[in-house]
Amino acid sequence: MDVHISLDGRRDLSGQIYRQLRAAIRDGRLRPDDALPPTRELARRLDVARNTVSVAYDRLMGEGYLTGRVGSGTFVSEAGTPAHAVTQGSALRPRPVWDSIAPWPSQDTAPVTYDFRVGVPDTGLFPHATWRRMLGSEQHGYGNPVGHKGLRAAIARHIGVSRAVRTGPGDIVITSGIQQALDLICRVMLEPGDRVAVEDPGYPPAHLLFRSLGADVVRVPVDDEGLCVDALPPNARIVYVTPSHQFPLGVPMSLRRRTALLDWARRHEALVIEDDYDTEFRFGGRPIEPLQNLDSSGHVVYVGSFSKTMLPSLRIGFLVAPAPLRQALRAAKYVSDWASPMGTQAALARFIDEGLLARHIRRMRREYQARHELLTTNLPSWLTLVPCAAGLHVTALAKDDPAPAVTRMRAAGVAIMTLAECSRSESAAPGLVFGYGAITSTGIAKGLELVR
Amino acid sequence: MDVHISLDGRRDLSGQIYRQLRAAIRDGRLRPDDALPPTRELARRLDVARNTVSVAYDRLMGEGYLTGRVGSGTFVSEAGTPAHAVTQGSALRPRPVWDSIAPWPSQDTAPVTYDFRVGVPDTGLFPHATWRRMLGSEQHGYGNPVGHKGLRAAIARHIGVSRAVRTGPGDIVITSGIQQALDLICRVMLEPGDRVAVEDPGYPPAHLLFRSLGADVVRVPVDDEGLCVDALPPNARIVYVTPSHQFPLGVPMSLRRRTALLDWARRHEALVIEDDYDTEFRFGGRPIEPLQNLDSSGHVVYVGSFSKTMLPSLRIGFLVAPAPLRQALRAAKYVSDWASPMGTQAALARFIDEGLLARHIRRMRREYQARHELLTTNLPSWLTLVPCAAGLHVTALAKDDPAPAVTRMRAAGVAIMTLAECSRSESAAPGLVFGYGAITSTGIAKGLELVR
Repeated sequence: MDVHISLDGRRDLSGQIYRQLRAAIRDGRLRPDDALPPTRELARRLDVARNTVSVAYDRLMGEGYLTGRVGSGTFVSEAGTPAHAVTQGSALRPRPVWDSIAPWPSQDTAPVTYDFRVGVPDTGLFPHATWRRMLGSEQHGYGNPVGHKGLRAAIARHIGVSRAVRTGPGDIVITSGIQQALDLICRVMLEPGDRVAVEDPGYPPAHLLFRSLGADVVRVPVDDEGLCVDALPPNARIVYVTPSHQFPLGVPMSLRRRTALLDWARRHEALVIEDDYDTEFRFGGRPIEPLQNLDSSGHVVYVGSFSKTMLPSLRIGFLVAPAPLRQALRAAKYVSDWASPMGTQAALARFIDEGLLARHIRRMRREYQARHELLTTNLPSWLTLVPCAAGLHVTALAKDDPAPAVTRMRAAGVAIMTLAECSRSESAAPGLVFGYGAITSTGIAKGLELVR
Repeated sequence: MDVHISLDGRRDLSGQIYRQLRAAIRDGRLRPDDALPPTRELARRLDVARNTVSVAYDRLMGEGYLTGRVGSGTFVSEAGTPAHAVTQGSALRPRPVWDSIAPWPSQDTAPVTYDFRVGVPDTGLFPHATWRRMLGSEQHGYGNPVGHKGLRAAIARHIGVSRAVRTGPGDIVITSGIQQALDLICRVMLEPGDRVAVEDPGYPPAHLLFRSLGADVVRVPVDDEGLCVDALPPNARIVYVTPSHQFPLGVPMSLRRRTALLDWARRHEALVIEDDYDTEFRFGGRPIEPLQNLDSSGHVVYVGSFSKTMLPSLRIGFLVAPAPLRQALRAAKYVSDWASPMGTQAALARFIDEGLLARHIRRMRREYQARHELLTTNLPSWLTLVPCAAGLHVTALAKDDPAPAVTRMRAAGVAIMTLAECSRSESAAPGLVFGYGAITSTGIAKGLELVR
C-alpha cells in the first residue's frame, strides 16, 4: 500500500496513524481487501514503537474499518468504504412552500436611532431583579404537556378578572407564545388544503404559519368595525381575528360584528381563533368583552401571551379551548415539544400570584399612555390617525404611498413599518405603523421631527 | 319588561344591574326592540340612585346591547342577541388522528418507590445553585429563530470535540428539545402521506409525532447490529434512527450498517435523522463515529439535547443540518414558536463555555456507570441482558410475556417499562427496560429484589 502517513511531533502518535488510515479508507485511497503493512514494518518506517501501530490497527478493527485474517495479515474491510463515489451536496430539498417563508419583520441591518418597531415592549422598565429571584425554582422533570398547574390557575384568575374570559385551569394549555398556540390549534383542526380566513391587513407571522402548513389562506377585509364578516368565505375551517385591537389598524371589533362572527362560526362549524393581544394596555373607553365570553357554543379558542406585558424572551403564552378540543391540544403540545420549561412557568405563576404582573401592567399602562398621547397629538399633517385607545402601536393613513419617505426615514435611523407590510393585496391602504414600546418619549418627539 | 334584577349589598350596584341586564339580553330573556324601563322608574323599584341605573344603561349602550331612541326611551338592540338558539357544545372535532395519540409513557398514578423509568436523569446531583447564578442574563428580545449565537458556537465546539460532529455555529438551529428538532425537520421535508421509516422497537414520542403529521410510519426491525438496512422500504423519505444507543435495546449500530444506511439514503435521496441521545454516558469501548461524521453527501440531520445531560425541564435541544435545508429549518422554527427562550440559551452557553457541562457529565458518568454495573450484574435469572455499555437504561429479554409480573411489580411500587411498550408489532420480543437515572444504587438493589 502506498498510503502516506506523516507524523507530527511525538504526541498521540497512535491517534495520528488511526486518523490518517481511516481518512484513506473513507475517501477511497485504500480499498476493500487492500492489505496493510504488518505492524512491525510500519512501526519501523514511521520510527515508532510497534505497540503504537498496533493500537491504531486495533481501533480500526474495533470500528470495522479493518479485518484481520489469520496467517495472512490485516486488510481493509468492505464495511467502512463508500459504495459510491462521494458527492458533495445532496439533492435533498425542502418543500417548495418554504421558499416563500421568511421571518417577519425582516431583520433590518441599518442602525436604528428612533425605534418605532411594532410589538416590542419596553424591557428596560421590567423588574428584572425581582424576576431573577423567582427563577430557578425546583421544577426539573419533563413536565406536564398542558403546563404547570399553578400557572394555569394563575392565568385563569388573571384573564377571568381582567378580561372576563370564562375559564378554569383545566381549559388552559401553556404554549411557547401565541405563535405556538396557533400552531397547536392548526395541528388539531386543519387538514392540508383547508381554508383559513385572516384579516387584511393582518398579522403576518400567523399568516406565514398557516401557509407553511399547507392551508388555503383567504384574506378578508377589515373596516372601522373590524373584520367584515359578510365577506368570509363560506368554507373556512378557521377564522383568525384580533378583535380587541385589530392588527395593525388598532380598531376594536364592534359588538355587532362579534355577534355576527360567532353566529357565522356556529352556522359553518368553523373555529374562531381570538388573539387578544395588547388588551392590557387600554387608555380609555371600556373594553368590549372577548368573543370567548360571548360564545356559548364552543366555537372560540382564546390565545394570549406574556411577551408584551413582560418580556418577549419569556416565550410563554397560552390558549383557552372548548372542551372537545382539549385532549387533542394536549397531545399536540406533547408531540411538538413535550412541554414548555417548567421552571419559567413556576416563576411566572408566582409573579402573577404575588400581584407583580398586575403592578407592572399598571405602571406600563401609564407609561405607554403618555407615549401614545405624545405620538397621536404630534403626528405630521400628511398622516391621518386611525383612532385607537389601546396597545403598543398606532396606525396612520397617508394619501400616497409612503415607501419613498420611509426609505429616507430609515436612512436617517428611523425604524418604522408600512401598512403594506401587513397586507399582500395590491389595494392596501397607504400608511405607517408606529410602535412606541421600544422608544422613549424623548425619542418619539425627535423621531417625529424626522418623519415630518 | 319582566326581567328580575336582584341587588346584593350596596357595592357596585351599577355593575350588578349591568351584568344582569346583559345576561338577560344574551340568553334571550330580553329580545331585540324590547323597551327597558326608564332609569327613574327602575331606580325607584330597586331603591338606588337614578345615576346608578344610568351608568349601567350607558355602559350597555356603549357596548351595543341597548339603543336609545329620542323621545321614546331605551331598547334592546339587535346586535347583542344571538341569532340562533344557544347550544352547549359544538360539533367541532379534532382531526381523527388525534384520537390515537396520547403522551408517552402514560402517566402512572400509582405511588412509585423504585423508579426504573426510562430517560429520566438524576436531577438531584445537578449543580442547581451554579445554574441559578447563570440564569437571568440580559436577553430580553424575541431573539433569533436559529438561536443564541454564543450557544450555537458552544454546542458546535462541544459536539465537535466529544462526538466528532463536523459543524460550525452556522449549521445549528436551537430547538425545544429533540422533539421539536424532529418536528422542524418534518415540517420542512414531509408532504402528507410521505413515508417515514423508524426502528422497531423504537422511540414512541418520535413515532407519535410522525403519525400526527400524517406520515405513513413504517417499522423496520432492529437486530444486534442496529437497524436492518436491507428491510427499509424503498420510498421512505425520512429514516429516523438512534445509532449510538438504540432505543430501547441499547445496541450501537455497526459501522457496516452505518455505511449501508448512508449509501441507501444517497441512492434513495432520503434524509436520515440521527438521534444521538445518551451518547455522553459511555462506560466502555470506543464510540463509533456518528453518521453525521461519516456522511459526506449531506443526507444526515444530527439532533441532540441537554435533557439528560442537564435537566429535562430545560427544554433545549439542537439540530445540525446540511446546507440545503438550513434556511427552511430557520423559517420552520420561526413559524413554530419564533425562537427558544434567549435567557436560558445565554445561560447554557456560559455553562458549556466555563467547562461546567463537561464536569457535570464526567461526574454523572461515574455515577451512572456504578448503577449500570449494579443493575447488570444483579439481574434476576429469568432475564437476559442485552449487552450495552452506555446510557441511562438497559434492556433485558424474558422468555415469556412479562406483563403479569409487571402488574405485580407496579402494585409493589416499582415503575418499569416493558419492551412491548416501544413496539406496535405483535411479535415484539418479551422484555423489560430498566432506567437507572432516577433511582439510587440502594434503590436499584432493593427494587431488583422485588423484580426477582
